[in-house]
Amino acid sequence: MSVVAEEINAVVDELSQLLGDRLSTSMAVRVHHGTDLSYHTPQAPDAVAYAESTEEVVEIVKICGRHKVPIIPYGTGTSLEGHITAPEGGVCVDLSGMNQILEVNAEDMDVTVEAGVTRKRLNEYLRDTGLFFPIDPGADASLGGMSATRASGTNAVRYGTMRENVLSLEVVLADGRVIRTARRARKSSAGYDLTRLFVGSEGTLGVITKITVRLYGIPEAISAAVCSFDDISGAVDTTILTIQSGIPIARIELLDDVQIGAINAYSKLDYPVKDTLFLEFHGTEASVREQAEQVQEIASEFGGSNFQWTTKTEERSALWQARHDAAHAMVTLRPGASVIVTDVCVPISQLAQCIRETKEDIANSGIIAPLVGHVGDGNFHLGYLIDLDDPEEVALGKELNERLIHRAINMGGTCTGEHGVGCGKLDFLIAEHGEAVSVMRTIKVALDPDNIFNPGKVVRV
Amino acid sequence: MSVVAEEINAVVDELSQLLGDRLSTSMAVRVHHGTDLSYHTPQAPDAVAYAESTEEVVEIVKICGRHKVPIIPYGTGTSLEGHITAPEGGVCVDLSGMNQILEVNAEDMDVTVEAGVTRKRLNEYLRDTGLFFPIDPGADASLGGMSATRASGTNAVRYGTMRENVLSLEVVLADGRVIRTARRARKSSAGYDLTRLFVGSEGTLGVITKITVRLYGIPEAISAAVCSFDDISGAVDTTILTIQSGIPIARIELLDDVQIGAINAYSKLDYPVKDTLFLEFHGTEASVREQAEQVQEIASEFGGSNFQWTTKTEERSALWQARHDAAHAMVTLRPGASVIVTDVCVPISQLAQCIRETKEDIANSGIIAPLVGHVGDGNFHLGYLIDLDDPEEVALGKELNERLIHRAINMGGTCTGEHGVGCGKLDFLIAEHGEAVSVMRTIKVALDPDNIFNPGKVVRV
Repeated sequence: MSVVAEEINAVVDELSQLLGDRLSTSMAVRVHHGTDLSYHTPQAPDAVAYAESTEEVVEIVKICGRHKVPIIPYGTGTSLEGHITAPEGGVCVDLSGMNQILEVNAEDMDVTVEAGVTRKRLNEYLRDTGLFFPIDPGADASLGGMSATRASGTNAVRYGTMRENVLSLEVVLADGRVIRTARRARKSSAGYDLTRLFVGSEGTLGVITKITVRLYGIPEAISAAVCSFDDISGAVDTTILTIQSGIPIARIELLDDVQIGAINAYSKLDYPVKDTLFLEFHGTEASVREQAEQVQEIASEFGGSNFQWTTKTEERSALWQARHDAAHAMVTLRPGASVIVTDVCVPISQLAQCIRETKEDIANSGIIAPLVGHVGDGNFHLGYLIDLDDPEEVALGKELNERLIHRAINMGGTCTGEHGVGCGKLDFLIAEHGEAVSVMRTIKVALDPDNIFNPGKVVRV
Repeated sequence: MSVVAEEINAVVDELSQLLGDRLSTSMAVRVHHGTDLSYHTPQAPDAVAYAESTEEVVEIVKICGRHKVPIIPYGTGTSLEGHITAPEGGVCVDLSGMNQILEVNAEDMDVTVEAGVTRKRLNEYLRDTGLFFPIDPGADASLGGMSATRASGTNAVRYGTMRENVLSLEVVLADGRVIRTARRARKSSAGYDLTRLFVGSEGTLGVITKITVRLYGIPEAISAAVCSFDDISGAVDTTILTIQSGIPIARIELLDDVQIGAINAYSKLDYPVKDTLFLEFHGTEASVREQAEQVQEIASEFGGSNFQWTTKTEERSALWQARHDAAHAMVTLRPGASVIVTDVCVPISQLAQCIRETKEDIANSGIIAPLVGHVGDGNFHLGYLIDLDDPEEVALGKELNERLIHRAINMGGTCTGEHGVGCGKLDFLIAEHGEAVSVMRTIKVALDPDNIFNPGKVVRV
């Protein structure tokens, strides 16, 4: 702890007066709130404040700010890069109690929610409107957390990421001021794009308290398809030509043979154990049929086989359930192992080469590492199955990840397609952006001069 | 001039040594470079520097920075809100000589260009690749200028604005450092979104020297349609339902009866003089037919008549030429008049009401003001036909615009959908964003502490 104990004690006193039993210093609660889904070592905050309104967040920020005590915003704790660890202690602000869906504008196809609303709850709420919110990072994350990490997922290839889908944010700044970054217009050239500045800022510039996002009409027809390939190149070339042809594919996911093997075992399925594309098409009845036919033709050109497509909801659900269970399934390949997840994203022309070199590197290491990829965006994940109690294995996993990231950066790619920087990629960010990181630091210092917001994440100050 | 003459003289001397006859102080050149397409009073810079490389821009910025002399980046001078006026004098940096198309990545569907490349030249260059760059602000603007103003245009409803389509920028900062804001990956969660911060910064945070943008496959089929309505509501309701139905419409433009009358006269056409939608569909042959049929059905539900659609290239070109000539056509309604162009954008549910109230206001004023709108985004323009030599008329035009903007803001909209803030909307920006403008100012001061970049635009310092 770099913050002196008296300051923490004073903050805990003041916050207890403000929040009563919604301020917790219990060890179990603190440890829970410093632990995400990543391999990074959990670090507990000194206290957890359960906020129920923007006004309470303002008071919490003011109290912490006066004492220069760190503030770590918390949604559902499903971060994958150590975003919620508390390396300098401080107060975790749990926003899950801010869970009101405030305003659905069906004609405008947007909705405003409090930061703690999760994506599944939002979609359940929207069910009767004919609208849905497409961003799907796997976990049932909160909209606040998804905004903060610039999350995306399986259907970003069609609907974009949080960057494209957040219309406006309410943010509490370091001095307790509250701003709204934009109004609800679909487009605007009115000044600097503060919305996009806070989307992806990972809690280091302010606390996001409300979010307005775009919605979409539930498609008239949805169909899904599976197709296997003898090698990754065929799957990637199919993806490239599909996108170049302007086919408005909704999902195009790559699972390598290792991952397919795991899924078959875990989900009791019998896909050919090959590199495989899972696809989804949204549109009219005629359009989804035409899209599927077009992609089937492209796939067959590149050695795709067993192309099977379906419009049946149950079959489609089973397919995507299997895809979403990929993370659980992969652990069955090495029971008891932990997973180090990677997240590079490269220009799609480099994807096959990047995957091939990476798989060679992995093969030489002896580590098991299934691959899943949002291949339409050039983004793929490996899960290194590691015994976290074995320092040599951990070091090996980190080395593999480091080589992968430098490989991706050298190909014009990024160290993180959708998981964020957190505490795990500070140096990779510098490798990727160079001098631009100093501009990020200038902005951080200008907006948070005392470095109270999520210190140790994104940029070092 | 607020900058002392000695400093200007010193800068001119140093720049002349650097650039030779590519540094001009001729009155004609200076006046030309301080004059855009707006109604704002032109203000000439003290000198115009024709840069031909990033390295030259760096030297220009360093020289101006040392003497605290303003720098105004210049693309094609087609700005609509006074972005290139020089209220404090200084050096206009003309980037039209930076016109190299540096790298087309056909598989990745992106291209990197120097800032002076114009959109039409880019599309001519791309013709043989099967790819195109969709953003279409009317004028043949430069990619640098389009990035700086967050431009869009007729097909933003399908392809997005510059916000969604810029992948990466090279920017020269106030101290002469050069950064690249991102790599070429389609998505990234690697740190603060500097790309989006500079897109729309209007030359106030740095000089954009290179731009990487997304490209799209030229659609297999393109069709266009026209449909007229007895009132604006029918056209707007058709638009809302079209978008809610998920029809991937490429263009949906509203022209009111006044504008249609002007176009008929100017382009020798015979559209019914009614509120009219111009539409375009992109896709496969089957898909564009299906889309047109769907929209026709929706339009007829809301009183649309004379629905005519075509896949013939000549007819389609004639239609969009007429649309693009709208600005020229409107002037024929009052020969010799100048145009004050408005640019609000509102949530689409408010669009009909906003237009109705605005038209009442205009009717009461006696001013002629045709309307064209990118109605799928909720963005529309009025052209107030004004005698700029008549102060009362100018004041009336400004009052109408002011009432329109406050009406739009009160409806959840923005003062500018695509033209930018420039020198014309500083106060409207405050009305729209409130406290958030002070965050913009904090960022401006942090990145440009001496206020050398395009002073007097976007935010007051």
